[in-house]
Amino acid sequence: MMARIDTEQFLKDLNDLRRIGAYRTGVHRPTYSPQDMESRRWLVEKLTACGLEASIDGIGNVYGRHKGPGPHLLVGSHIESQNQAGWLDGALGVVAGVALARAGLPVDVCAFADEEGHFEGGFLGSRSIIGELSEEEMDRSRSRNDGQPLREALAAAGLAGKPRMQLEPGRHKGFFEMHIEQGTNLESQGLRVGVVTGIVAIWQWLIRFEGQQDHAGGTTMAERKDAGLSAVRLLAAIDQEFPRVCGERSTWTTGRIALEPGAPSIIPGSAEVLFQFRDVAVPVLERMEQTLRRLVQESNRREKCPATLTQKSRATPAICDPAMMAALEAAAQDLAPGAWTRMPSGAGHDAQYIAKRMPAAMLFTPSIGGISHHWAEDTKEEDLALCCEVLGSAAERFLSA
Amino acid sequence: MMARIDTEQFLKDLNDLRRIGAYRTGVHRPTYSPQDMESRRWLVEKLTACGLEASIDGIGNVYGRHKGPGPHLLVGSHIESQNQAGWLDGALGVVAGVALARAGLPVDVCAFADEEGHFEGGFLGSRSIIGELSEEEMDRSRSRNDGQPLREALAAAGLAGKPRMQLEPGRHKGFFEMHIEQGTNLESQGLRVGVVTGIVAIWQWLIRFEGQQDHAGGTTMAERKDAGLSAVRLLAAIDQEFPRVCGERSTWTTGRIALEPGAPSIIPGSAEVLFQFRDVAVPVLERMEQTLRRLVQESNRREKCPATLTQKSRATPAICDPAMMAALEAAAQDLAPGAWTRMPSGAGHDAQYIAKRMPAAMLFTPSIGGISHHWAEDTKEEDLALCCEVLGSAAERFLSA
Repeated sequence: MMARIDTEQFLKDLNDLRRIGAYRTGVHRPTYSPQDMESRRWLVEKLTACGLEASIDGIGNVYGRHKGPGPHLLVGSHIESQNQAGWLDGALGVVAGVALARAGLPVDVCAFADEEGHFEGGFLGSRSIIGELSEEEMDRSRSRNDGQPLREALAAAGLAGKPRMQLEPGRHKGFFEMHIEQGTNLESQGLRVGVVTGIVAIWQWLIRFEGQQDHAGGTTMAERKDAGLSAVRLLAAIDQEFPRVCGERSTWTTGRIALEPGAPSIIPGSAEVLFQFRDVAVPVLERMEQTLRRLVQESNRREKCPATLTQKSRATPAICDPAMMAALEAAAQDLAPGAWTRMPSGAGHDAQYIAKRMPAAMLFTPSIGGISHHWAEDTKEEDLALCCEVLGSAAERFLSA
Repeated sequence: MMARIDTEQFLKDLNDLRRIGAYRTGVHRPTYSPQDMESRRWLVEKLTACGLEASIDGIGNVYGRHKGPGPHLLVGSHIESQNQAGWLDGALGVVAGVALARAGLPVDVCAFADEEGHFEGGFLGSRSIIGELSEEEMDRSRSRNDGQPLREALAAAGLAGKPRMQLEPGRHKGFFEMHIEQGTNLESQGLRVGVVTGIVAIWQWLIRFEGQQDHAGGTTMAERKDAGLSAVRLLAAIDQEFPRVCGERSTWTTGRIALEPGAPSIIPGSAEVLFQFRDVAVPVLERMEQTLRRLVQESNRREKCPATLTQKSRATPAICDPAMMAALEAAAQDLAPGAWTRMPSGAGHDAQYIAKRMPAAMLFTPSIGGISHHWAEDTKEEDLALCCEVLGSAAERFLSA
């Protein structure tokens, strides 16, 4: 028996949700904002209408619990958006969960709060539901947008003092998350479905160079301790060396270079570089780390401005469950023969935390032009509908496997 | 007859002036601030006490006119400071002018307004007095500190509507400016006097790279258009190539690198680099410009992020007058045998504008540790006194030559 996904209603739900916090063709629903809370209440109604027992917990997670017998699946993603960002992103995976529930599949549906990290820490909802968000961290966390304490934001959203839900051990056979790709791999190959093999870990670094601030006219080139120049030389060395040690799909990014004081006629006295690399394989991550450490050491032997390397995050990559991937692949091959591929997720997702408690897998839809975290983000309706059907079919296959 | 410089009174004047806008061991006297205006009124009193006819004009220039017969010299510098900066800098050259007037030398003394460029344009006073500051530019100029329009600042300082003084053609045989070195050339060679050969020209550039802002996870290395990486590669190429074409004392500086949006997980969509180089010789400046243009062209042939090069300033270097330099050298050799040298000025000074209207020359005192534009800036009292005596002696020699 194959559950029928009502793709028309699925697309209507997505477009209804798009009206909450609408911004140009996208949405603006930062976590715990009035728009975000409106979308969570909208979701509770939708889940209830599909026969689930729905509620919002003390961190803002919306959870719809299937009332019938198991085995159960957990399906979902996040519903808040980046600022002035796209209408799909996390909302897609949540509304896909609603579609599966409507089709009668035995799924619990969850919208995890603040995957987007509007508050320090990020992934508050998925970390909370697996028991990895402490009250102390909540006491400390502040909005990255305006500095508002998390506790104040929760109180303003009417969530203060509400209990925080935990996953029920043994209830779920696995977690499925559907999401937009946020890249152009699928689109550029003319593919319509991505079966995610794993979620990369991001290792973030702060590299700080200490030089000496001086007048750009009075100080000869030989006398200078130009922290900015030492930073440029290290970044050029990374650009040379990383391709020799990286994996096939590794990425590395310098997001910020800040020279102090940053004036045209002053030799920078210090420089700060935000650097990160990503991969799904720990040995590759470790090889990139070794290379980075060696290049910093070489810089410190050669340059007059000492560099200090500080690791800001060191996550563990999440490998997707082989049986769930097999179910996704079989469903994709059935519904879109030859138009799907396996691929890693370069971005972080709630699934990486849920994967600590149960088997997890992800499905990607194509992103038009690869645009993400921008209001212009979009995906073709036929791709959205197809992927929701693939998800439903995979859920059935996995449940009956 | 040798004019006697009262070095004790000279040092006392400097220390009296240091109390106006005192900040730690330095001063904070931004142009047209109450502290700056207090220092200008203090100077008017000092000049009057030395027998000069003193006034403040509509751009804030303080001018003390010698009442006796010529030939006359013009002596001076600027009296405002950078923010939280040193007590000597320009104040030294102004107070040295007072000392020469006190000794009975036929000098006019001028403190030019805003050499430090607190307002857009900079060098307002010296450019005004040679007729190169238009009313239209004054209408447009704003404070670089807080955006206040120049006209408002002049009104608040009581200068609105006052006429702006022009140099009297033919009145002066030459202009002498004494200043701190703002570098460590003198100190590192154990020297006490620097005879300036010329003032470097600064050619400033904005280099802008246009890439594509993307998610640092979803976009493969091959797909990226990372504007920051293109900037780093160009800056590394400049670091390689400029030493091959520069002059002996050329300098080049990247003061700022701004990546947009500057977040850890976003591939920079654009990058802006503030770059400048300096030299006293136009052929050397032109060689560096050619090299820069070639490297930008090469970048545009190689990189996916097009670079645009915009020249922000293209000054003309000022060559010091040979007869005035000879007078300074003879005086230095007389008062500090073997303890002086010739050197270019790497920083801009009022003398570069005054040199457009009359012969000009400059004298440097050592800067302890090369510190400049910082409250810790300092020079030994014996070096200050010696250089003031060298200036007085050189003025006499040049007048009688």
